[in-house]
Amino acid sequence: MNHEKHTPIKISRKKEEVKQQLKKLGMMIYQSLNNGIFPEVIFPSRSVRNIVYNEELKQYVLGQSMVRRSSQNIKHIRPFTQLIWLASFVNKLINEGKTSTLRDVFYSSQAYGIDFTDQDESDEMITDLEVLLGRAREDFNVYPEERSAIFGDLTIEYTVPGYEGKRLNLASHPDGYLIGPSLSTAEFIDTSAEMVIAVEKGGLFTRFVEENIPKRYKALIIDTAGQPPRSTRYMLRRLNQELNLPVYILTDGDVYGEHIAMVIISGSANAAHLRELTVPSAKWIGIWGSDIIEYKLPSVRLTEADIKRIYELKKDPRYKGGIWQRELDVFLEIKRKSELEAFSKYGLTTITDKYLPKKLSEIKSF
Amino acid sequence: MNHEKHTPIKISRKKEEVKQQLKKLGMMIYQSLNNGIFPEVIFPSRSVRNIVYNEELKQYVLGQSMVRRSSQNIKHIRPFTQLIWLASFVNKLINEGKTSTLRDVFYSSQAYGIDFTDQDESDEMITDLEVLLGRAREDFNVYPEERSAIFGDLTIEYTVPGYEGKRLNLASHPDGYLIGPSLSTAEFIDTSAEMVIAVEKGGLFTRFVEENIPKRYKALIIDTAGQPPRSTRYMLRRLNQELNLPVYILTDGDVYGEHIAMVIISGSANAAHLRELTVPSAKWIGIWGSDIIEYKLPSVRLTEADIKRIYELKKDPRYKGGIWQRELDVFLEIKRKSELEAFSKYGLTTITDKYLPKKLSEIKSF
Repeated sequence: MNHEKHTPIKISRKKEEVKQQLKKLGMMIYQSLNNGIFPEVIFPSRSVRNIVYNEELKQYVLGQSMVRRSSQNIKHIRPFTQLIWLASFVNKLINEGKTSTLRDVFYSSQAYGIDFTDQDESDEMITDLEVLLGRAREDFNVYPEERSAIFGDLTIEYTVPGYEGKRLNLASHPDGYLIGPSLSTAEFIDTSAEMVIAVEKGGLFTRFVEENIPKRYKALIIDTAGQPPRSTRYMLRRLNQELNLPVYILTDGDVYGEHIAMVIISGSANAAHLRELTVPSAKWIGIWGSDIIEYKLPSVRLTEADIKRIYELKKDPRYKGGIWQRELDVFLEIKRKSELEAFSKYGLTTITDKYLPKKLSEIKSF
Repeated sequence: MNHEKHTPIKISRKKEEVKQQLKKLGMMIYQSLNNGIFPEVIFPSRSVRNIVYNEELKQYVLGQSMVRRSSQNIKHIRPFTQLIWLASFVNKLINEGKTSTLRDVFYSSQAYGIDFTDQDESDEMITDLEVLLGRAREDFNVYPEERSAIFGDLTIEYTVPGYEGKRLNLASHPDGYLIGPSLSTAEFIDTSAEMVIAVEKGGLFTRFVEENIPKRYKALIIDTAGQPPRSTRYMLRRLNQELNLPVYILTDGDVYGEHIAMVIISGSANAAHLRELTVPSAKWIGIWGSDIIEYKLPSVRLTEADIKRIYELKKDPRYKGGIWQRELDVFLEIKRKSELEAFSKYGLTTITDKYLPKKLSEIKSF
């Protein structure tokens, strides 16, 4: 198996580093003002032209272009002020041990007379701060609204206020634990797990728990609930990097399922400035187009939108070669797609007892 | 406070009752066949004409019309067979301690040559079985795909296989516990909670945990994640009935939020055959249209669709009188709506420290 290098960073140390970065930013502003210089910030550009595909990393990254935002430039004053306000807002969040959603940030600005036109604008500014600090927004306590879930033998220790030092084993609630700010920032203490299986759907997550997959395969299970929220991708990355666990992804057998796997593995163009959200060694184990044929799965005809999406992804550099291009071609050829639940035609446990072990042993031999 | 009568039924006893009902149904079929009679089933009709509003219960219920499905009638054979297959399928689920989603049921039928045309048809049949047994589908182990979450000081004891007798306190994971089959069927052992607060959004759920609302207000918190899945409404009902806890509902300040509260309280026309999904004593505490004015909340203009929806609900018998009609009128009058996050304009804790206590004390004086 091709594991990435093991480079865990203690969560608490990471938070300390972010605080230092924010302090440095603030100091820089003050010093500029004290020295009679207009303060400015410089960071990599996120313009489409500066988002390039890196063959080696197999993900989109930012190129060499930089943007400068100077308080001397009348056109820059608004975004410059918004960015500095945001930095002070998240600094307060971290110091008080609070978290915020993207939407909360939008409304919070309204008390300061530098309000954003709409949430798109405040979301953009949060991304700018990510680029400036080189950190995912989760590192400065801004979380998405959506949550997905995890189950399995992993003992964690919380670092959030009120729970510091408390431990919990994630096999104690069979319906699963939400992956929110507390879990994302918990330290991993102990696990007997030897792999992580990410599944696209809540129903299948429950099936896996009922069929004892976590014990039988020594696996942690994650319900991505469709395209996983960023905090879940971050969690998958941590499980892979810190615990050295291989990650397998199981999705519906269609172009959207394939893309869920791709985003977990290679990230998205929107997050080209971040490395903390990818799991380059993760494997998409199914449902492949070729599985629809091999397992005689009930299937439905592709729609025009499905076909259009396949042609789009065929041109995407992340889909060049390997199973990625091959399975897009199979979908196009058979013009059919199948859902994970389609296995139920052959009994509720066919997916856990026949399909999963077969695919896992195939993928390990790659 | 106006609590309903306290009529808890032990979860394990309930499951035993369902098994008896299914057995009786099977026996009836066999006996008819043995006696040379075409088997048939009779149950209340769910046609629109037979769904009537009950003023006293304040919910839609089924009227007196019955439907008969006889294996003697060539037109009935297909739905009759589907219904009996479904009964045998869920009987197997219960006996094996497994659960299924609606979608799994649809695919599972395909192995039996009595497959449904589409999932709408199998969903309809599941509802027919609910009517026939007078039970929510969760009682016969068919669960929705969606999950919402709970947090607070409630100790539960599982009844699902592999976890029987194990206990867990729902304050141990601050991101929250998914409400799935295991939690829905757990016995409630102990709680210090004196109320349940259901909130519409995950972000606010996290805020409430961070601001210690569960301890400060002795409250269990539920994230309904929009219109709550049925298993969550069922959970709210159980917390209200078995633990005698009042339920307060906090939603966005718009017609959809108001309707989330209404469905928790009075149920929906689709589920007119069920009483187990309503919490008649629950209270909608906000955001009311009048709160938007009183608290000077940032708001946006109603869309044409919002206004159309308000006029629809104004004619709905559930919305006759009280705050229900009044607040619909306020929305129409001010032509504005606000989200829960809008309070962040006045600081992230304004909603927990000012709005919530004020509304709770107002509602208790009603």
